[in-house]
Amino acid sequence: IVESQLKADAVEKGQYRHYMLKEIYEQSWAISETLEGRFLDKQLLDSAFGHNAGLVFDQIKSVQILACGTSYHAGLVARYWFETLGRVPCNIEVASEFRYRNPVITPDTLVVTISQSGETADTLAALLEAKRLGVKHALAICNVPESSLVRASDLVLLTRAGPEIGVASTKAFTSQLVALLMLVVAVGRRFGMSPALEQEVVSELFTVPGNIEKVLKLDASIELLSQRFADKHNALFLGRGTHYPIALEGALKLKEISYIHAEAYPAGELKHGPLALIDAEMPVVTVAPNDYLLEKLKSNIQEVSARGGQLIVFMDEALGESDEENIQIIKMPSVSHIISPIIYTIPLQLLAYHVAVLKGTDVDQPRNLAKSVTVE
Amino acid sequence: IVESQLKADAVEKGQYRHYMLKEIYEQSWAISETLEGRFLDKQLLDSAFGHNAGLVFDQIKSVQILACGTSYHAGLVARYWFETLGRVPCNIEVASEFRYRNPVITPDTLVVTISQSGETADTLAALLEAKRLGVKHALAICNVPESSLVRASDLVLLTRAGPEIGVASTKAFTSQLVALLMLVVAVGRRFGMSPALEQEVVSELFTVPGNIEKVLKLDASIELLSQRFADKHNALFLGRGTHYPIALEGALKLKEISYIHAEAYPAGELKHGPLALIDAEMPVVTVAPNDYLLEKLKSNIQEVSARGGQLIVFMDEALGESDEENIQIIKMPSVSHIISPIIYTIPLQLLAYHVAVLKGTDVDQPRNLAKSVTVE
Repeated sequence: IVESQLKADAVEKGQYRHYMLKEIYEQSWAISETLEGRFLDKQLLDSAFGHNAGLVFDQIKSVQILACGTSYHAGLVARYWFETLGRVPCNIEVASEFRYRNPVITPDTLVVTISQSGETADTLAALLEAKRLGVKHALAICNVPESSLVRASDLVLLTRAGPEIGVASTKAFTSQLVALLMLVVAVGRRFGMSPALEQEVVSELFTVPGNIEKVLKLDASIELLSQRFADKHNALFLGRGTHYPIALEGALKLKEISYIHAEAYPAGELKHGPLALIDAEMPVVTVAPNDYLLEKLKSNIQEVSARGGQLIVFMDEALGESDEENIQIIKMPSVSHIISPIIYTIPLQLLAYHVAVLKGTDVDQPRNLAKSVTVE
Repeated sequence: IVESQLKADAVEKGQYRHYMLKEIYEQSWAISETLEGRFLDKQLLDSAFGHNAGLVFDQIKSVQILACGTSYHAGLVARYWFETLGRVPCNIEVASEFRYRNPVITPDTLVVTISQSGETADTLAALLEAKRLGVKHALAICNVPESSLVRASDLVLLTRAGPEIGVASTKAFTSQLVALLMLVVAVGRRFGMSPALEQEVVSELFTVPGNIEKVLKLDASIELLSQRFADKHNALFLGRGTHYPIALEGALKLKEISYIHAEAYPAGELKHGPLALIDAEMPVVTVAPNDYLLEKLKSNIQEVSARGGQLIVFMDEALGESDEENIQIIKMPSVSHIISPIIYTIPLQLLAYHVAVLKGTDVDQPRNLAKSVTVE
């Protein structure tokens, strides 16, 4: 008999109305736990990923990420990080697609799987398929130590987010992002990441919990914002670069718990079709931490303002932008572009949560969905 | 002065109510034209891609596809073909993302750009970015001979779809798919494509025009089906493998001209979120040429039938399935899996067209959209 080591408060709602809200608020803690003990004198330890991780990282030539749902969105962010920061060639694919298409993959690829439960059926099957195709090394990013995915992988980085009860993943997602950024450092320093950049990334990682605390202070203003969505059935989410996956994740949260049909696009694709959809009934949420994107989006929105297109923009307070007709600005604390996808996730989680509460849905147990998708 | 060689009927609607319908019906012709003169004794000529194409194909180690919008969807299909049929490592990315993220790319990569007009600003900029990063060879798949993209590429395969007037691309898309499948053969035979498979692909290519003619006979029944969408504001499109991009393209057509918020998912992702959206107001269109997918989808739909989820499935007539409660089957002619993404595109174009006509939108000039996106 193994006694559960979970403290009682890990699985109780406490002061919170829903598990999801509790889990949103637990994120700075979950991330601190995930960072804990994995650095020595601000140097990331290879051994954080397993005792022979350093040897494996020395041998690999590229990374292939496999995941589903929210974990896939974490992987999409990591794909940008691996290439842009680490100069590590990186591919990513939805696990249910990878497993059936007989993909081309070389043995010196590190397969990285991501799953909160470690029991996601398609992700596990995709990992086995990669092994069948000759891949030698696999690393799991997972929240459950004894899960199937962990057992099938030679390397592992456990997120330490604690039990996640809400079906819509929140703290597991941001903890995955932190774990992935650690992996980008560990692998990247063997490719083209400079020691200076490595130090910068590590420093930024340790600012994440504090920045999350800052962003949580926006809760009341986001609750107010949520009223604009109470009568809506559709929404569009836009982002570029590492914030495109965050737009995807923001849209997915809204879908999952408020049943609003929210869809995300990389902002550059707007003119290639979705612009036709925009009217007063289709609010456009934009994750635009950097200013060059806002300028581009403004030109887009001018085109559709005649149709009543409404833009809600999450952006850096330092840019000093203020609301205009059809454009509402939500000012975010200034953070480095390296960690901004993690930080900009938080307000989108809060937005989805408050909209769902307004709509009166079953926030923690949305219709039709299960917490872990353990069957195909 | 260069006289236009376009025949008058190429830019007139003739018997058709809209250019889009005319262009849907021109597809078997456009594809025959695109195949014309590029084979000798059923052998694809390397020279179809440029006089030194064979030398270039001998040197490349992988393919990187860059495109936007509908052309991006053509590239997504090709990505499956390159790897599954050709054993050619292939990546694809939205051009507006690739150009700004400082991606990792090696000089021996063949960059393949796809654009109807050859003037798509982001695609051209992404190509120049790839060259800046050291890429030596580029191939354009394009419908306009003297376009910027063609001039910036050393190799080119012109689609010969004729002028496309409707903003929503139809015949350019299927012609691109045919051109891409030719490219898969030309490159694939230098990687792992067997002569037998090459012959099979070439034979299948020549069946495309005839199969399109067959599918066009479904027009009346698809017009009938379109009535089910007349009062809808949302729809979900599902596919797997090479048919996932076709689901994306079907959803995009519906978005562009009927203003219905249609979104596509790889079917395996359904349980990771979008299932929460499904109710009687959200029809689910499925491109399921093969039977194993239908079985998987049926289990999904059983879960949501209590919520009134309505499934419309395009599938092979040979499977002998018939309608069930909540499941309407549209029987398609039996075709090889190799060309089926091309063939299954046609009914989705017709569906979007008829829904738009019912809704009374400006089919050829949908609101907010331009034919070619020549600015960012």
